[in-house]
Amino acid sequence: MNITILGTGSVGQALAGKLSSLSHAITMGTRDVNASLAKKDNDGMGNPGVGKWIEQHSQVSLSEFSQSVKEETEIVIIALSGTVVMDVLKLVGEANLKDKLIIDISNPLDFSNGFPPTLFVCNDESLGELIQQQYPNSKVVKTLNTMSNAVMINPNVLEGDHSVFMSGDNADAKLQVETLLESFGWKSKNIIDLGNITTSRGTEMMLPLWVRLFGKLNTPYFNIHINQSKM
Amino acid sequence: MNITILGTGSVGQALAGKLSSLSHAITMGTRDVNASLAKKDNDGMGNPGVGKWIEQHSQVSLSEFSQSVKEETEIVIIALSGTVVMDVLKLVGEANLKDKLIIDISNPLDFSNGFPPTLFVCNDESLGELIQQQYPNSKVVKTLNTMSNAVMINPNVLEGDHSVFMSGDNADAKLQVETLLESFGWKSKNIIDLGNITTSRGTEMMLPLWVRLFGKLNTPYFNIHINQSKM
Repeated sequence: MNITILGTGSVGQALAGKLSSLSHAITMGTRDVNASLAKKDNDGMGNPGVGKWIEQHSQVSLSEFSQSVKEETEIVIIALSGTVVMDVLKLVGEANLKDKLIIDISNPLDFSNGFPPTLFVCNDESLGELIQQQYPNSKVVKTLNTMSNAVMINPNVLEGDHSVFMSGDNADAKLQVETLLESFGWKSKNIIDLGNITTSRGTEMMLPLWVRLFGKLNTPYFNIHINQSKM
Repeated sequence: MNITILGTGSVGQALAGKLSSLSHAITMGTRDVNASLAKKDNDGMGNPGVGKWIEQHSQVSLSEFSQSVKEETEIVIIALSGTVVMDVLKLVGEANLKDKLIIDISNPLDFSNGFPPTLFVCNDESLGELIQQQYPNSKVVKTLNTMSNAVMINPNVLEGDHSVFMSGDNADAKLQVETLLESFGWKSKNIIDLGNITTSRGTEMMLPLWVRLFGKLNTPYFNIHINQSKM
């Protein structure tokens, strides 16, 4: 399929690498292609700059946000810091997003007051809902936002069962996401459809717990599992 | 041990029943003893009124909040609706709570706008923290607030591993809570000490996800497990 990933950070790179290895045609959207290509150094977490990464993944094309979603694009994946999501979608353009499946992986994390981060939207609202409200003619599905990218793209990195959630208003869109998740290695029984897009509040509000667990366990290799195996 | 449970609803009853079966001396705190004793009918969920429940559990004593925590009380458990916690603790009295271990199981759920509930405190604050701030001479440990009471008191009701969290500033108090949890059947490896009381934000903010899962799975017999078994 023809898939555009908005964002060139570690989450964007992980998804672009995985999806292109599954023979999808991948475009990565960025603010400034030349600036991105010039990023050769590793970031603080040891992830390669996207300029370096693209050299090693020449099948992935890089495009400015406004040019990144085309007629033939079938899926748009939001792999951005939550704080810039609405601005970037504006650059992509409502007309380009119309009727598209938008997979939202972002979280409304606000690090402006340091650690632990807070959420800049939560409780009676969520980033997933804000996107769906702003783009009512697109089909937004929130998923994969409750784990590290290492687990997202390769669930078999953990032994045993663990869960991934989906929230969205459109049943066909969720079916499409389920197929994509299964192609990553997710077992059907571990994909939990929580319901409509308002259920994004639940998964986004799990982030404060996730952040503390990450600090405690000191590894990105963990995930939550909904254990419902009654004795 | 001498334990006071604040609250006579289904969570309070479950804990009182379990703890008295483990030979602890249990007092249940309530607003009005006579009114509680008169509650004989089942509630909407099929739980017995506390008046009926006390008849079946005569070893548990019922006491008004202001009389419920005494010199000899070793542990105070908050099994109340989040909305009334601060008011009830005021009735119990700061002098009575001094130096006590307070186990807080409550959640700041606000149902005043219907379903789904929101949290009346979250993000940069939590109910666990508010209690610790208000009673700095008590040792608050937040735990067990991320599951149904059926799972709290009998973790073996679910097959396989699943997790319970602890948040608190006092290491000795958390050790004491761990011992109590183990006496309920919790395996040591599944008891996760998240850190200080500010980590309550994480477990309280898990409630919106829990509520949606409860609606989806249609059973209280589930819990989350932190899967960290890397392949």
